[in-house]
Amino acid sequence: MTTLGIVKRNIIRADRVATDKLAQFGSATVHEAQGRVGLMQSYMRPIYAGAKVSGTAVTVLLHPGDNWMMHVAAEQIQPGDIVVAALTSPNTDGFFGDLLATSFQARGARALIIDGGCRDVAELQRMNFPVWSKAISAKGTIKATLGSVNIPVVCAGVNVEPGDVIVADDDGVTVVPAEWAVRIAAAAEARESLEGEKREKLASGVLGLDMYNMREPLAKLGLKYID
Amino acid sequence: MTTLGIVKRNIIRADRVATDKLAQFGSATVHEAQGRVGLMQSYMRPIYAGAKVSGTAVTVLLHPGDNWMMHVAAEQIQPGDIVVAALTSPNTDGFFGDLLATSFQARGARALIIDGGCRDVAELQRMNFPVWSKAISAKGTIKATLGSVNIPVVCAGVNVEPGDVIVADDDGVTVVPAEWAVRIAAAAEARESLEGEKREKLASGVLGLDMYNMREPLAKLGLKYID
Amino acid sequence: MTTLGIVKRNIIRADRVATDKLAQFGSATVHEAQGRVGLMQSYMRPIYAGAKVSGTAVTVLLHPGDNWMMHVAAEQIQPGDIVVAALTSPNTDGFFGDLLATSFQARGARALIIDGGCRDVAELQRMNFPVWSKAISAKGTIKATLGSVNIPVVCAGVNVEPGDVIVADDDGVTVVPAEWAVRIAAAAEARESLEGEKREKLASGVLGLDMYNMREPLAKLGLKYID
Amino acid sequence: MTTLGIVKRNIIRADRVATDKLAQFGSATVHEAQGRVGLMQSYMRPIYAGAKVSGTAVTVLLHPGDNWMMHVAAEQIQPGDIVVAALTSPNTDGFFGDLLATSFQARGARALIIDGGCRDVAELQRMNFPVWSKAISAKGTIKATLGSVNIPVVCAGVNVEPGDVIVADDDGVTVVPAEWAVRIAAAAEARESLEGEKREKLASGVLGLDMYNMREPLAKLGLKYID
Amino acid sequence: MTTLGIVKRNIIRADRVATDKLAQFGSATVHEAQGRVGLMQSYMRPIYAGAKVSGTAVTVLLHPGDNWMMHVAAEQIQPGDIVVAALTSPNTDGFFGDLLATSFQARGARALIIDGGCRDVAELQRMNFPVWSKAISAKGTIKATLGSVNIPVVCAGVNVEPGDVIVADDDGVTVVPAEWAVRIAAAAEARESLEGEKREKLASGVLGLDMYNMREPLAKLGLKYID
Amino acid sequence: MTTLGIVKRNIIRADRVATDKLAQFGSATVHEAQGRVGLMQSYMRPIYAGAKVSGTAVTVLLHPGDNWMMHVAAEQIQPGDIVVAALTSPNTDGFFGDLLATSFQARGARALIIDGGCRDVAELQRMNFPVWSKAISAKGTIKATLGSVNIPVVCAGVNVEPGDVIVADDDGVTVVPAEWAVRIAAAAEARESLEGEKREKLASGVLGLDMYNMREPLAKLGLKYID
Repeated sequence: MTTLGIVKRNIIRADRVATDKLAQFGSATVHEAQGRVGLMQSYMRPIYAGAKVSGTAVTVLLHPGDNWMMHVAAEQIQPGDIVVAALTSPNTDGFFGDLLATSFQARGARALIIDGGCRDVAELQRMNFPVWSKAISAKGTIKATLGSVNIPVVCAGVNVEPGDVIVADDDGVTVVPAEWAVRIAAAAEARESLEGEKREKLASGVLGLDMYNMREPLAKLGLKYID
Repeated sequence: MTTLGIVKRNIIRADRVATDKLAQFGSATVHEAQGRVGLMQSYMRPIYAGAKVSGTAVTVLLHPGDNWMMHVAAEQIQPGDIVVAALTSPNTDGFFGDLLATSFQARGARALIIDGGCRDVAELQRMNFPVWSKAISAKGTIKATLGSVNIPVVCAGVNVEPGDVIVADDDGVTVVPAEWAVRIAAAAEARESLEGEKREKLASGVLGLDMYNMREPLAKLGLKYID
Repeated sequence: MTTLGIVKRNIIRADRVATDKLAQFGSATVHEAQGRVGLMQSYMRPIYAGAKVSGTAVTVLLHPGDNWMMHVAAEQIQPGDIVVAALTSPNTDGFFGDLLATSFQARGARALIIDGGCRDVAELQRMNFPVWSKAISAKGTIKATLGSVNIPVVCAGVNVEPGDVIVADDDGVTVVPAEWAVRIAAAAEARESLEGEKREKLASGVLGLDMYNMREPLAKLGLKYID
Repeated sequence: MTTLGIVKRNIIRADRVATDKLAQFGSATVHEAQGRVGLMQSYMRPIYAGAKVSGTAVTVLLHPGDNWMMHVAAEQIQPGDIVVAALTSPNTDGFFGDLLATSFQARGARALIIDGGCRDVAELQRMNFPVWSKAISAKGTIKATLGSVNIPVVCAGVNVEPGDVIVADDDGVTVVPAEWAVRIAAAAEARESLEGEKREKLASGVLGLDMYNMREPLAKLGLKYID
Repeated sequence: MTTLGIVKRNIIRADRVATDKLAQFGSATVHEAQGRVGLMQSYMRPIYAGAKVSGTAVTVLLHPGDNWMMHVAAEQIQPGDIVVAALTSPNTDGFFGDLLATSFQARGARALIIDGGCRDVAELQRMNFPVWSKAISAKGTIKATLGSVNIPVVCAGVNVEPGDVIVADDDGVTVVPAEWAVRIAAAAEARESLEGEKREKLASGVLGLDMYNMREPLAKLGLKYID
Repeated sequence: MTTLGIVKRNIIRADRVATDKLAQFGSATVHEAQGRVGLMQSYMRPIYAGAKVSGTAVTVLLHPGDNWMMHVAAEQIQPGDIVVAALTSPNTDGFFGDLLATSFQARGARALIIDGGCRDVAELQRMNFPVWSKAISAKGTIKATLGSVNIPVVCAGVNVEPGDVIVADDDGVTVVPAEWAVRIAAAAEARESLEGEKREKLASGVLGLDMYNMREPLAKLGLKYID
């Protein structure tokens, strides 16, 4: 359970090499590779198409309409981090814009994942600073209440611990527990190497029904072909 | 009413020439031409902008979180078809990705219309395989339960019979009953030829109020101009 | 409170110079400059990215599924106006397409803001006529009922008076009361000139915590750093 | 596909005895008995708790904000019917209130199922006239456009043919094709008689795991118990 | 346009007799009587069924997650008032519970209308203090930011001026401009007296088609009866 | 992060006395007492009004459309437990009905909290078995895939560990970490004892503005009273 008013300075980040490698596989493959868990809800969308990143989570818990803790989070960013912002109750205000992005980028952050709104999206695209958010909104926020930084948070349906790996692309956002990073990077790589061969077969006209030997189990369940 | 566990092999597809012609008119004009019916709900959105297609429907009914019948559907695809996937209850999982798209494309499918989620969207755009879906989601699905292929389905609020024409573009997805295809293609063409003339008049500054003779009926209903 | 069946011909438009100037600051800065009010709800989205406009509001109140009053509104448009369309109850039909856009553009309108649906979006982008809407839908509308033109309307949560300034970009839509236009244009300009300096500092690695002197008030509220 | 401007007078209603019998089993059991199909989406809610009805469908297709065809439908009602109202596009206006209910009730209708809004709900409860709707709204509607009566319609995600059986209770609304009514009534009865025995066993503390012999298949799939 | 940080003490309340009379007609009839305008969106629901009230509006504008201004509003309440709470951006926190209700009730308030969340609903029902809200939520709020009291606000899609009449029941919430109150009370009364006669006729089996002479206009529009 | 296919048999349940005591304070007070965290999202609603319970969590993770693990969970229930069911992706099917309720009740469960759908709601009310759910749906589910029991799950936005305390009533559902139970029960009790006195003062007409000494801080922030 989260507590308010706390900033944790020392967090254990996932293995850097594994973290960086995970970006190339994408959110879908990584989510499959770790047993189909860890995917944020599908309302989390990139503010512009084509970005594909991975990084270690610095978490922040915000109150609706208040982005004060974003500045506190900025100080905890290390190069290669991705900030993950959760809210204590649903809200779509624009908690993040180009000024904060400038600061985050200067600290080495690669992206922001926020279960709320984001603004200055045209400028953020020019800056090449990707954001996955629940909404785009010009609505400004205040700086009045304490949240926390680097505590476990629930963001878009997934529990995120500080230091976990975040993998985000056009398909969504997957969270990999820090201690699984190396294992999942290997599993994702293995998974992807198998896909090339399958793709070729399917492109040549072979059916999945045959390639995956599905005809028998389907018939067993009672699938009937009629004319 | 649908039944589960059925694959219908022989379906009567709409007239090919009429089907292919309908793409150019777009979903809005075709929907108007057939009396303002047959339009799927507006939450059905293209995964990338600019695609404009028409084709004959191969239908598939899926259970939430299970895409097994997609492979059964693949075998029923003929060149010029568009797969229309309905769900037995609302769900946004990623039922379709680049491997299935490779298979569908190899069979001659032009697009997928799915009342659920889709993934690998960056790859699908590279492949030039358009999808209209309710959601984009990296969430993988299982292969455990029987649905049906080529039975009537309700997709995004419209009843679709196998063989019906699907017209999809940036404005949405319209369904034309197979037996209406030729008539609607003609009606849409007639409709469009009238639009060019109207467009010119309006561009020159003529008001719709005058062009359509609306002033009198509006006055009759009591419209009052005040200063 | 609105009344139906009224068209007001003479409206007092906001100062032209201030109105035109406001576009460059964008919806977020203008909304902040006037005290964080006047922003439409975040479901109002541009039909294509990159447009940034300001203009004076011509308002129109429509019934669900009926766009007749759009033609009445067209006649009231003057160069530099933006049409703001509200609905008497929520509806996502396609009230606006390329023909109406041709007419609006011929009259000098710069954009449409509609708390409903829009269609022909590919064509509208080609025409360079931006629309901010609640939905994209090919659904056609009828012409059967009276609404009103140039009365106060509530659009996406904001009360808009005819003549008010509309500022719209990728972040959303802000409404500035006509009589505030000059003052807010100045305030927005002042605000923006301060941002350049801040941006530089943040880019150099200075933290917002220090730049805005936040450490003390945060400590006073009880923020605790732990290791 | 639906056509507008049509009223079909002679429809084939499902078997009366089977229709009347289906009410007692409820929407859940009937939906299971026919193979888990035919259930309307879960946003369809009763305007008051406790009603449980079945009847034969008189269908009506309405435009958003227009309830004119409800009066046309009234004439087609026979004792034991349930009116099923679909919309050409999503809308929550109050299409139905106590006056129409008085008329429907006088004609022998047992209920209304509407993929839109309903009003006068306190009065409808006093009248004992149940309604399952998408919304409750005081919003009045106009009488200006033609829809159709007794054509196939899609209501809340299910295709309904005139004459089909409607079964509705606190759990939702299930549609049984007219020609299946007798068979499904028998199947539902059989299903229910089995439930009594199961209920007793479960009440005595027997686990479903044992009663349904689930332990082995779960173990086969790899379920692991840890301490 | 609203301004923050303002409390207006002297407001002109609608005529008391007319205001009190409006409750009996209900939100639907009043909304019709004033030309089908002024109805809040249908997501505004009573926290318990059966309440039916009217009163004069004391308005309050709140920030998401902050209910401080509710206490400021309490002081402005006079017997017969209904508090109308709007938010600067969408939020469902529980801004109101039994303590505030005790205070409001002690001041003579009859109800609360809030475009946000409410809590302690079981207790509020015991106190007989009705609330129409967007959500029920136990989420507590803070007291940190200034809103305003007795300024015009947009609540659930309707512009409300302080002193306007609020009519609320199970069907929803209608707003009557203060200066229209006497006229609308008379119109609603006239409207209702006509309904009794219509109800009797319809109950006796007369069809609306005949009572309202609809057959001819329907035939003119082309309605076709088929067998 | 969750893993699939696991059942944990020995969990550490929160202190029984503290757990049982928490029911009386209700979800709102408990959520405040632990620092305004731990509240599930407000879409979680009781299937009938008036229930108020607390208990220790037995957690279960389900796949969309599959309730198999509910039977596995039943065996892990001990008297005084509340089952908390989370889903791997959003789904509103009816995962729970009267048969499972009979089994859960026989094992000593007090309630079910489910981030999905529930059915047989009339029967559940008769059985006095309360459920808080996201939806009511007659939609049946299958038994085909492995989830897990007694692992940490995210339910309606809150991370729940097996053994945590669940407090649920008409206002919503609050989760108290097992190790905080004793402390929070004391804090909630203290909080509530203060409320009685406040309530009396407010009922006598004292304003919160005075009782809480708010006038000065409001004036400092610039609140202006105008006439």
